Amino acid sequence: MRKTLILFLFGCLFLNGQQNRTIADGVAFLYNESLTNGKSYDWLDQLSNQIGGRLSGSLSEALAIEWAKEELEALPLDSVWLESVMVPKWVRGTFEYANIESSPGNTINVNICALGGSIATPSIGIKANIVEVKGIEELAQLGENKIREKIVFYNRPMQNSLVNAFEAYGNAVDQIYNGVAEAAKFGAVGVIVRSLNFRLDDYPHTGTMSYGELPINKRIPAASISTNDAELLSSMIALNPNIRFFIKQNCRNYPEVKSFNVIAQIDGSESPENIIMVGAHLDSWDLGDGAHDDGAGVVQSMEVLRLLGIKKGYRPKNTIRVVLFTNEENGLRGAKDYASGVRSKNEKHLLALESDTGGFTPRGFSFDTADRYFRKILSWKPYFKPYYIHLFDRKGSGTDVNLLKESALVLAGLRTDSQRYFTHHHSEMDTFEEINKRELEMGAATMAALVYLTDQLGVE
Amino acid sequence: MRKTLILFLFGCLFLNGQQNRTIADGVAFLYNESLTNGKSYDWLDQLSNQIGGRLSGSLSEALAIEWAKEELEALPLDSVWLESVMVPKWVRGTFEYANIESSPGNTINVNICALGGSIATPSIGIKANIVEVKGIEELAQLGENKIREKIVFYNRPMQNSLVNAFEAYGNAVDQIYNGVAEAAKFGAVGVIVRSLNFRLDDYPHTGTMSYGELPINKRIPAASISTNDAELLSSMIALNPNIRFFIKQNCRNYPEVKSFNVIAQIDGSESPENIIMVGAHLDSWDLGDGAHDDGAGVVQSMEVLRLLGIKKGYRPKNTIRVVLFTNEENGLRGAKDYASGVRSKNEKHLLALESDTGGFTPRGFSFDTADRYFRKILSWKPYFKPYYIHLFDRKGSGTDVNLLKESALVLAGLRTDSQRYFTHHHSEMDTFEEINKRELEMGAATMAALVYLTDQLGVE
Repeated sequence: MRKTLILFLFGCLFLNGQQNRTIADGVAFLYNESLTNGKSYDWLDQLSNQIGGRLSGSLSEALAIEWAKEELEALPLDSVWLESVMVPKWVRGTFEYANIESSPGNTINVNICALGGSIATPSIGIKANIVEVKGIEELAQLGENKIREKIVFYNRPMQNSLVNAFEAYGNAVDQIYNGVAEAAKFGAVGVIVRSLNFRLDDYPHTGTMSYGELPINKRIPAASISTNDAELLSSMIALNPNIRFFIKQNCRNYPEVKSFNVIAQIDGSESPENIIMVGAHLDSWDLGDGAHDDGAGVVQSMEVLRLLGIKKGYRPKNTIRVVLFTNEENGLRGAKDYASGVRSKNEKHLLALESDTGGFTPRGFSFDTADRYFRKILSWKPYFKPYYIHLFDRKGSGTDVNLLKESALVLAGLRTDSQRYFTHHHSEMDTFEEINKRELEMGAATMAALVYLTDQLGVE
Repeated sequence: MRKTLILFLFGCLFLNGQQNRTIADGVAFLYNESLTNGKSYDWLDQLSNQIGGRLSGSLSEALAIEWAKEELEALPLDSVWLESVMVPKWVRGTFEYANIESSPGNTINVNICALGGSIATPSIGIKANIVEVKGIEELAQLGENKIREKIVFYNRPMQNSLVNAFEAYGNAVDQIYNGVAEAAKFGAVGVIVRSLNFRLDDYPHTGTMSYGELPINKRIPAASISTNDAELLSSMIALNPNIRFFIKQNCRNYPEVKSFNVIAQIDGSESPENIIMVGAHLDSWDLGDGAHDDGAGVVQSMEVLRLLGIKKGYRPKNTIRVVLFTNEENGLRGAKDYASGVRSKNEKHLLALESDTGGFTPRGFSFDTADRYFRKILSWKPYFKPYYIHLFDRKGSGTDVNLLKESALVLAGLRTDSQRYFTHHHSEMDTFEEINKRELEMGAATMAALVYLTDQLGVE
């Protein structure tokens, strides 16, 4: 009896060891294939350099949707389709112009760009005194008397002391998103915001802003100013608070237009009703070519399906789906429509994994899930160790997949090395030249590995 | 009695918790100061852009030595001195020239650079047929008949499948270091080596080569060719094995000259005889400005002493020393002389930590030490966790500190994210513009933290 038990236990250990090795070999295949024969870098070259920046509802976004659909159709998948989504359409128009007038007739040009969603200035521009604040609280303290008829200049930098660059971004982004409506309430005629960039350089960074409940006739134009010029402006205000600032921009909001989420999948062989989703957003801002935000995530997500599709003898148990969302940057309509479709079809997502932190070296994931699923995932850490993947935290997932809370057991976001992200983010510095091929490919493999482990080992 | 015991244990836990917090606060100070008021980036700007590439024994290395000494003297340290070292002096001369002659009179120019230590070609250059090999073994199989009077072309790429870029480098570097002497033994007239770079681009990467025991009259010129041109050359050889290759270079070896290690320290307040050393190499190759290799390590090591020197109320128990080695790239003479000085003075090093993997995001350390010291260091992992420092492995330390084996309890090397390193390494792509300020500063703080922990908690 004892002997039998020992043999049985030994057998279990052996089978378990064998399974571990098979799984580890599977993970190794994904990294090896991505790093030696990967398609992500070529795909990103096409998306960035043949199509470029692709703001929702633009012609170039339509081209990107067409391109992604065709590339996915060329893979051995079970289905590829488009999900129609109505999106806001905002157009920058001709490039913005701004200067600081230190005394009548003496001007210094500075680098600005309109914030996404902003209205234009009158065609002759606006010129006004400046009031510099560190944030919305300081604005409220100053009150309407000191703000009326002025341009509000939000100049709170990202905190260099924070090691996690996304945390520093999160602490500063309210100036962009909420700052404009707040300034308008106090009678400001325009808003200038310091670019969200750790670095001092000459590139203004855009981003989406909201007028909140502000009626149309109360809306004021808003722009971002480069970090170097924010420093300049601040020092000039310190010398002479009466300097004036001139802005001219002719961006415009149009009626909504039709766009699409691009979706493709490999049907599950055992439980096709269980979906493992990977995704990213196909739209980008218009200043660069959107290689890091979020072209990288797009091609990595496509690569996950390609890698799993060519893995010899592997047929996923569950359905593996890629979703390329439209309109993440200025409306989140793609994610909203996808999530409501999932709810109405009562589709169950085991995992919804997003890549939207740039094509930098992957460090791990952030999970939004229940303890029991998280514990299961933590047990997979050893499979990731050879690839220097060490981060398994629980600080959110991804902007798009976050809307799937009701339908997914596990929401997750790929987490990359964040130090360089905000040099590029939402600016003309976000270009394909700034992508390192191996870092991009490592990210694709890391996503593929999580999908593969979820499919093979289950999270439940 | 039981109550007393509980109180005692509680007291111990409390004191222990308090110490942990004090230590954690100390580490936090180092990161915060480096990221908000750090000097490393400015220093590196000076070293890279005012001095530039600084091959041992060159005028610019002499300037770098003078600069480092002056900057260290401006810090509140106890002593700064120079250690005299004789170093080889090799000079590239005018830029190299090479072409592929596909048929008489039809040539295509390609990008090469002489390998460090190589002799010149005759002033009219050399032109010969090419024999392409994947390495020294294949060379030996071909034998003298097929090699005599030819130029040997080593074309084994770095393995993309390896996640650790340094491992891929280690597997390929024999072609450069040993390949020339081997080819000469079989009667080759010259050697061309594929640049050690994952990326396909147009920049040749240099590096040190050895003629071994080869007598002077048997030595042959050797150069590195860019990865793009290596691919071109290989495909042209496949089409026509009789194509000829032309090289002209006029580099030269001069008699040895005097150089210096730059050394500075804060004397220990309790055990000044115990030394905690940080260091890097001050020399670099001549093609770029040596910002990553190893300007980054130099300014990070200097920053460690600055950070510890300004930490309020902190007086190191042990002596904290910085050593900036000369001649790491082509001779290791600085490290040899420093190590022999340490041995003859019988100086005890608790830790010798080197930074020589570029100014990229720090991931951790590699240690070369006994199990018991390693276990102690592993217990410090929680202090590093907030800074995403996770790698504590045992695969070597640093080229310079490696010579201190007899005199140090712990040898260590900072380990950075390695994916981008070989894009820059030993080429004109190694420039200050390719440095990310925060990544550099994180590295300095990470080194300072290990030094601080070693000083406060001891490794014994």
